Amino acid sequence: MRETYHKELESISESLVGMATLVGSAMGRATGALLDTDLQVAENVISTAGQVEDMQRDLENQAIAVLARQQPVATDLRVVVTSLRMSADLERCGVLAQHVATVARRRYPEPAVPQDLRRTILEMGQLAQRLMAQAAEVLITHDVDAALQLEQDDDRMDELHRMIFHHLMDDRWHHGVETAVDVTLIGRYYERFADHAVSIARRVVYQVTGEHADDLAIEWPTTP
Amino acid sequence: MRETYHKELESISESLVGMATLVGSAMGRATGALLDTDLQVAENVISTAGQVEDMQRDLENQAIAVLARQQPVATDLRVVVTSLRMSADLERCGVLAQHVATVARRRYPEPAVPQDLRRTILEMGQLAQRLMAQAAEVLITHDVDAALQLEQDDDRMDELHRMIFHHLMDDRWHHGVETAVDVTLIGRYYERFADHAVSIARRVVYQVTGEHADDLAIEWPTTP
Repeated sequence: MRETYHKELESISESLVGMATLVGSAMGRATGALLDTDLQVAENVISTAGQVEDMQRDLENQAIAVLARQQPVATDLRVVVTSLRMSADLERCGVLAQHVATVARRRYPEPAVPQDLRRTILEMGQLAQRLMAQAAEVLITHDVDAALQLEQDDDRMDELHRMIFHHLMDDRWHHGVETAVDVTLIGRYYERFADHAVSIARRVVYQVTGEHADDLAIEWPTTP
Repeated sequence: MRETYHKELESISESLVGMATLVGSAMGRATGALLDTDLQVAENVISTAGQVEDMQRDLENQAIAVLARQQPVATDLRVVVTSLRMSADLERCGVLAQHVATVARRRYPEPAVPQDLRRTILEMGQLAQRLMAQAAEVLITHDVDAALQLEQDDDRMDELHRMIFHHLMDDRWHHGVETAVDVTLIGRYYERFADHAVSIARRVVYQVTGEHADDLAIEWPTTP
């Protein structure tokens, strides 16, 4: 009984890591589709979101089964409840990767990102993928320092997001309104994706220390 | 014991309704701040988000306490777990209202919304508030028809969102890129707010019927 219980808890944790890996990879491919104007990759990412949704539903059912059968208390209970929140974060990340791919598809065969923003968008995409890989690692290791590091690394995402806005507001912007709209949305999708990775790290901190990460003197990321 | 238990479940449900009421009102005031360029109201809405966050945290602790003490099974267990997801939706809605107010504040004393989009944004704001009021009602009544109706009413939000995009893409757009960026983000905030209201209604449907709302032949709202 005890053994089954721990296997079940472990299985939930593995599902979370699996979801994080999948959405991180999806966002990486979405960035590729965007910058290489690759329709096939875009379509492929768009079809991933359904898979993430299914994983989320499975994880929710798994968690409910554990709650019903094992009636965990104290730390274990918090772990299961927190897993539910994390799986919602990860499901949302799948949708955000899908959104990025959808912008690539909508503008195909034109590139959605103008030449002078490619480097910034590439960095956002890579950072998003890296933050999610860090979140997956934190899910496995429960390393509080790594979780707090992730929050600091996310500051760069906020900075990149602000750079995009400054670029858009610059009088020399000459790519027209349609591109401005696309870039605004793309920037927001990456920033939200990173926020979810931060949120997962924060919840791990809470699981381990019983303290909310913002009480450990870290600020929430803000949107410009 | 039994009585305490039902009081606790009821209290969770009341907290959800309270959160829905608060974020609905916040979004209404944010729309007012945006269209009336009212800095004081904008500031007031921005300070609400912390309150919603506190309510969410309280609700989460309440839910965990019920799970630990009462160890609910079957339907009651699903109700508690679903409440956690709903409270996350509502917390996010508080942030979205805050974002709308932040756009109003950032552009103050200039209006963020150009004259020719005021009517559309007003309708989005009113619809957002109405959808959240419907969601609160569904939380109280558990009326499946009303929940499904909410999804249909949300179609109008998607239509308004598309209208904004068409307007932005129109060659006659002459409000510049900064306004285009603001309007893009505002449109997205309202649409996401409405999505969360729909999501709450869907979860009530699932609680009552055991079937996911999308199996009842309703499509997820899509982003243009």
